[in-house]
Amino acid sequence: MPGSAGMAPSAPRTVADLGEHALLERLRGRVPPAPAWVALGIGDDAAVLEPVRNELVVATTDTLVEGVHFDPRLATFADLGHKALAVNLSDLAAMGATPRAALLSLALPDAVAVVDFDALVDGFLAAAAAAGVALVGGNLARSPGPLVVDVTALGSVRRRRVLGRSGGRPGDELYVSGTIGGATAALEWLSATAAGDPAGEPPPATIARYRRPQARVRLGVVVGRTRSAGACMDLSDGLADAVRQMAAASGTGARVEAGAVPIDPGARAWFERHGRGPLEAALAGGEDYELLFAVPPRRRRSFLAATRLARPIEVTRIGALTREPAVVLADSRGESPLPEGFAHFRGGR
Amino acid sequence: MPGSAGMAPSAPRTVADLGEHALLERLRGRVPPAPAWVALGIGDDAAVLEPVRNELVVATTDTLVEGVHFDPRLATFADLGHKALAVNLSDLAAMGATPRAALLSLALPDAVAVVDFDALVDGFLAAAAAAGVALVGGNLARSPGPLVVDVTALGSVRRRRVLGRSGGRPGDELYVSGTIGGATAALEWLSATAAGDPAGEPPPATIARYRRPQARVRLGVVVGRTRSAGACMDLSDGLADAVRQMAAASGTGARVEAGAVPIDPGARAWFERHGRGPLEAALAGGEDYELLFAVPPRRRRSFLAATRLARPIEVTRIGALTREPAVVLADSRGESPLPEGFAHFRGGR
Repeated sequence: MPGSAGMAPSAPRTVADLGEHALLERLRGRVPPAPAWVALGIGDDAAVLEPVRNELVVATTDTLVEGVHFDPRLATFADLGHKALAVNLSDLAAMGATPRAALLSLALPDAVAVVDFDALVDGFLAAAAAAGVALVGGNLARSPGPLVVDVTALGSVRRRRVLGRSGGRPGDELYVSGTIGGATAALEWLSATAAGDPAGEPPPATIARYRRPQARVRLGVVVGRTRSAGACMDLSDGLADAVRQMAAASGTGARVEAGAVPIDPGARAWFERHGRGPLEAALAGGEDYELLFAVPPRRRRSFLAATRLARPIEVTRIGALTREPAVVLADSRGESPLPEGFAHFRGGR
Repeated sequence: MPGSAGMAPSAPRTVADLGEHALLERLRGRVPPAPAWVALGIGDDAAVLEPVRNELVVATTDTLVEGVHFDPRLATFADLGHKALAVNLSDLAAMGATPRAALLSLALPDAVAVVDFDALVDGFLAAAAAAGVALVGGNLARSPGPLVVDVTALGSVRRRRVLGRSGGRPGDELYVSGTIGGATAALEWLSATAAGDPAGEPPPATIARYRRPQARVRLGVVVGRTRSAGACMDLSDGLADAVRQMAAASGTGARVEAGAVPIDPGARAWFERHGRGPLEAALAGGEDYELLFAVPPRRRRSFLAATRLARPIEVTRIGALTREPAVVLADSRGESPLPEGFAHFRGGR
C-alpha cells in the first residue's frame, strides 16, 4: 500500500531527524565504561582526568575534512572513524607518548544517515579500544558543507623521554619505520575505481595503508624509553616533507639514499604499472603515518634493540642529517634536491 | 595601465595563495613566548605540558561552524577568534577549572583573506592572553565549504573542587550569574541590520554579549575553591536548557521563578519593542555563557561570599531543584513547563 506510513519503504533516518541531544545520547550509549583515572567523562561540560604521576601531558589535534582529506566513496564511515583517531595517535607516537584519552568533535551535514554516524563512532571506538584510549568528550555540530571530523588526543610521557623533532644533529642516521607509498597507491587505485577505471588492484595490505592506517604507537614509546633517538616525527605529509621539516627544525641538512628507501611492494608495482617512478611517487606521497628518527651513531645499537620490541614493524636506515644545509637525494648519478612533499593545503587533495 | 602586474589594484591575498606551511609560520610568529610549563609548544607533532602538581587535567572542545554558529556579516574575524576560545573557557569555568592551554584547529575556505586569518588569530590570542592561556598547538586544513573553528581547551583543578553538573540535590537553590538574553537580542539586531531592517539598536554592552562573550572563569574557580555549589554548568544552549540538563543529570526536577530571572536590560527593551515576551525569549536564547549553580541552603553563605570575589559579576537566585521530577516555570498564575531550550543542531541556527 504505497503512501501508507507503516508500509512504504522509508528513507534512512538522518542525523537531522534525531537532533543533537538524541545523537549525544546515542554516542554515549556506545562508549564503554571509562577507566578509573577518568574522574568525569562524556556528559559534563568538560572531561576531568587524573594525570600520570611524574609524567607530562601530551596534546595534539588533527582534522579530516570531507573533500580534502577523505572522499566517502573511497572509504567507509568506519574507516573514517578509525583514521580520525589514528592520525592523532601517530602524532603522539612521534613524541614517544603513550595515548590515553581523546575528544571527538563532529560537524555533520544534515543528510548523514544515522547508521553512518553509528559506523563512524564505532570505527573510532574500536581504534580507541585497540590503543587503550578512552573517549572522554567531544562536540556535535551541524555542518552546512562537508563532514568535518576533528579529534584531540591526549597522552603521557616522562620528561626525559620526549621525542621532539628539533633534536637532530649533523651525523645522526635517519631511520624510517615500515614502508612508504602504500597510502598514495591505495588512494590512486580507489580514486580510479570510483571513476570506473581501476586497472590493476594493489594487494589488500596496501589498500589498508590508506583506509586503516596504524599509528606506530609502540615503536615511538620504546624508542623514547631508551632515549636512543635525538629527533622523531611522523610522516603525515610524506617522507620528503618529514625529512625537510626535521632538518629545518634541527638546523641541519639531510641526505637520503635513494636505494635505501623502503617502498611498499604493492605500491611499487602500482606506480611502475602506471609508468611512474616509484621512489618519487612514494617520497612525495602523504598519509603513510610511519615514523622518521634521527639517531646518533653511538646510540645505534640501543635504538635497534629498542625497535625490536615493536616487531613486526621494522626500521630502515635511509640516510643521515648533514652539516651542509641542503636536503638531497643521493643515487648512483649523484645528488639532487629531495622532491617537495605533499601539501594538504595547496596542490594536494 | 590596467592589466600591468605592477600597477593594477591587486586582489587581497588569500590563505590559498600562502599555503599551509607559510600560514603556520605566520601563526607561530604571532604567538607570544610560551610559559615555562610548556615543554614543547607549537611546531612539533604534539604539545608537551607539565601538569599542575596535585591537580587534575580538564579538557573540553567546542566548534564554531560558519553558517551554523556564526555569520561573517554579523561579527568580525577578531570577534570570531575571541569567541572560539571564550566558549571553551566557559566549559572549563563550569568545572571550576583554571584554564591553561588551548589548541586551535581551523578548516579554512581558500578565499579567506590573509588579513582575516590574521585578525582571527589575533582575536584568539588576545582572549588567550587575557585568560592566561597558552596556545600550544593546533591544525590548519582546507575547507571546501564553511570556515570551521575547532578549539580544545585544557585546564586544571583539584579533585575536590571539581564542579560537575550531576551533583545537585532536591532543595538546592539555583543561581545564575550575570544576565541572560543579551546574546540573542544582539544576534537578532545584527541579523536585522544585515538584512537592512534594524529597527532600534540595543546598547553596546548587549551587542558585546554576542560578539565578545566573557567566560565566567574567575567565578567558576572561586566557587569551586569553596566547594559551596553541588553542581554547575554553563548556559551555552540557554538557561532553560541548562536547568533541564542539570536537573536530568542530578535526578531531580526544578522550579524557576519567572520574576527572578535576570534579563539583560538592552535585551528586554529589544524583545518588548518587537512584541515578544522578554522572559520566554531570554530563557530560550543560547550563547549567554553565564553559569548556573545548584547550592545547598546550608552552603548559601559560603557561596555568596565566594561570588563576591568575582565582582562585578553578580549571581541571582532564580529557583530551586525539586523532588518532583517536573521542570517548571512559576509565576503569579501558577506553574507551567519550562520552555524548551535552544538547539544548535535542530531548529536553531
